[in-house]
Parts: sequence; structure tokens; C-alpha cells
Amino acid sequence: MDNLYTTHPETGHSHSYGPMKNDLILRLKRIEGQVRGIERMLEEDRYCVDILVQISAIKSALHQVALPLLESHTRGCVADAISSHQGGEQKIDELMDVIRKFTKG
Amino acid sequence: MDNLYTTHPETGHSHSYGPMKNDLILRLKRIEGQVRGIERMLEEDRYCVDILVQISAIKSALHQVALPLLESHTRGCVADAISSHQGGEQKIDELMDVIRKFTKG
Amino acid sequence: MDNLYTTHPETGHSHSYGPMKNDLILRLKRIEGQVRGIERMLEEDRYCVDILVQISAIKSALHQVALPLLESHTRGCVADAISSHQGGEQKIDELMDVIRKFTKG
Amino acid sequence: MDNLYTTHPETGHSHSYGPMKNDLILRLKRIEGQVRGIERMLEEDRYCVDILVQISAIKSALHQVALPLLESHTRGCVADAISSHQGGEQKIDELMDVIRKFTKG
Repeated sequence: MDNLYTTHPETGHSHSYGPMKNDLILRLKRIEGQVRGIERMLEEDRYCVDILVQISAIKSALHQVALPLLESHTRGCVADAISSHQGGEQKIDELMDVIRKFTKG
Repeated sequence: MDNLYTTHPETGHSHSYGPMKNDLILRLKRIEGQVRGIERMLEEDRYCVDILVQISAIKSALHQVALPLLESHTRGCVADAISSHQGGEQKIDELMDVIRKFTKG
Repeated sequence: MDNLYTTHPETGHSHSYGPMKNDLILRLKRIEGQVRGIERMLEEDRYCVDILVQISAIKSALHQVALPLLESHTRGCVADAISSHQGGEQKIDELMDVIRKFTKG
Repeated sequence: MDNLYTTHPETGHSHSYGPMKNDLILRLKRIEGQVRGIERMLEEDRYCVDILVQISAIKSALHQVALPLLESHTRGCVADAISSHQGGEQKIDELMDVIRKFTKG
């Protein structure tokens, strides 16, 4: 499975989101545009509720970037560390920290 | 309290976030920068977990824009519609829709 | 609208959930049963994932109790305090605190 | 690590929450009591906001049952399936479904 991974030259960290990288970047560019859209709405004195609905949409869109990233990380980095007995425990620690961040309350 | 409101020239909608408008726009510009930062992290093949932590931070930052907006809307537009008996019911309908969007699950 | 309210004899607090009180109690009895169901699942050594799915279902069910309560509170107590100019500000403070609790992150 | 697991006699499913089972059951009994407490609050016509604060507390308490369960499941069942090459993919599918349920929005 090694060819699924890309290793960062400086940090030495690998990642497994390669196949969806362009799609994720595209989604983030769209999110960036949505954030700029809200700035404009505020500048144009648009109605609070319309702005709140937009903010809620951006939060959902960010979530739709986070979920596939989390999934590819679990299937790739985490599973690989476990099956190769190289730092699986630490990867699970990290994973749980991230899950905790995304599931407050 | 009328001077608290700014009315949008075309939609005729008023809003009550005037006093915090600049602060909110500043926060959104920072969020826009954070989103661009994540695009860069993906392009530079950075570690998935670091990206996920950033996404979670942006979601929190957006929430910190939404909450004061929701509060000023409730204290301003909603309370005013109720106390002047002009469309209070409809404002509460809208408010509940927004709250529902922000409290899924 | 006064007849919509029930006043607690000791605290003097009124509430406006009267018309849905029995329905809410019924839902909570069902939730209580679901919680007991999870205790049983743990005692019977049932599969973690099945238990987690149940916990998530209970959280949703609780949310479906909270939302109508929040709505009736806003339409009743909050709107009434505002339109009668009796403590509207304080009611909105309370409301925002509750909304903050239900929308962490 | 086999002794970490308890296998359900009928379903054949194993779980890894053995060491914390009694603690989790205790917490759920407390949650059950809290739910009954809310029923009583409704019956006694208590103030809506006080009830909403309690519901929010129960949701947090349930979350504090779900998180350790999710963690022990990941460290136990999931990691074990991956490292023994027995159904790791399917365990990750299940895990992602559960994470999705706990991180709506």
C-alpha cells in the first residue's frame, strides 16, 4: 500500500489523502468564496438571518471536508501504523483527540 | 431604539449588528486566511491530523461569529418586532429555524 | 395570553409548555427506557457499536424534547416579557445562555 | 490480548469495554435518574430554562459515556481486526458510521 502515501519532505509525515487532494482543495476554494460572500453581506448591511444561514452552510461544508479526510486518515495512516506495529497506539491517541474536537457536547 | 438599526436599501430589511460590523468583518477576513492556509497545507502534503485540527479551529471561529450575530439579532430585530407588535411571530419562526440549523443532533 | 401560563407555587416562575407537557413527559419516559436498555446491553456484553448507535439515538431524542421546549419558551415567556416590558433583557440573557449550551463548537 | 475481550454468547461479537463496564453502567444509572428528574420537573411545572439546562447536562453526560466506549472500541476491536487482518476494513466502515452519527453538522 506504500504508493498510497505521500511523505512531506521536511516533517517526514506521510498522508493518505492523495487521491482526493484536488477535490478537497476545490471544496476549500469554494468555502473561501463563501466566507468572502459573508464579509460582503455584512458590508452591504444584509439581514442577520440570511448571514446566519450562510454561516451554518459553511460549517456544514467544512464538515464535508473533514469527514473524508478523517476517513482516509483512519483507513490509511492509522490502519497502516497498527498493521505494521509501528506507532499504532500513538496514532489512535491522535485520532481520539481529533474525534473529541469534532464531537463537543 | 431606531438608530440602532441599519436598513438595507433594496431588501428593506433592517439589522442590528451595526456596532460590531467591523469586528465581525475582521474575524471573517481572518477565517478566510485560515481557509486559504488549509488549501496550502493540502498542496504541501501536510499531515492529515494537523489539517483536521485546523478545520476544527475554523468551525469554532465561525461559531464565534454566529453567536454574537444571533444575540444582536434576538436583542434587536426579534425583540423590537415583538414589542412593537409588528411581525414578532414571524421573527420567532425564523429564529427557531436558525437555532435548529446550529444545533443539529 | 395569560391562560397559557402555569405558575410554579414556590418559585413563582411561569412556564408555557402546558399544552405539550404530557407529550414531553411521555417522550422522557421512553428515553428513560432507552437509557435502561443501554445498561442492559452493557450487562449482556453487547457489541460496542450497537451501544454507541443507541447512545446517539438517545441524544437525538433528547434534542427533540429540548427544541419544542425552547420554542414554547421563546414564544411564551420570552416574547411575553418583551412585549409587557417586564424583564425582557434578562429573559434574552437566559435564552442566549441556553442556546450557547446547545450549540457548542 | 485475547483476555481483554468478552464474547457475546449469541451474537458472537466481542467487545473490549470490560474493564470500564461497571463504571459505564453506574454513569448510565445516574443518567437514568437525571431523565426521571426532568420528568418530575415537568410534572411540577418547573421553569423551562431550568429544564433545558438539565437536558443539556444529560446530553453531555451521555457524551461522556460514548467517548470512552468509542475509544476502547477503536483500541480494542478495530485495532485488533486490523492487526490480525480479520475484517479491519469492515470495522473501519462501522467506526466511520458511528463517528458520522456523533458529529452531525
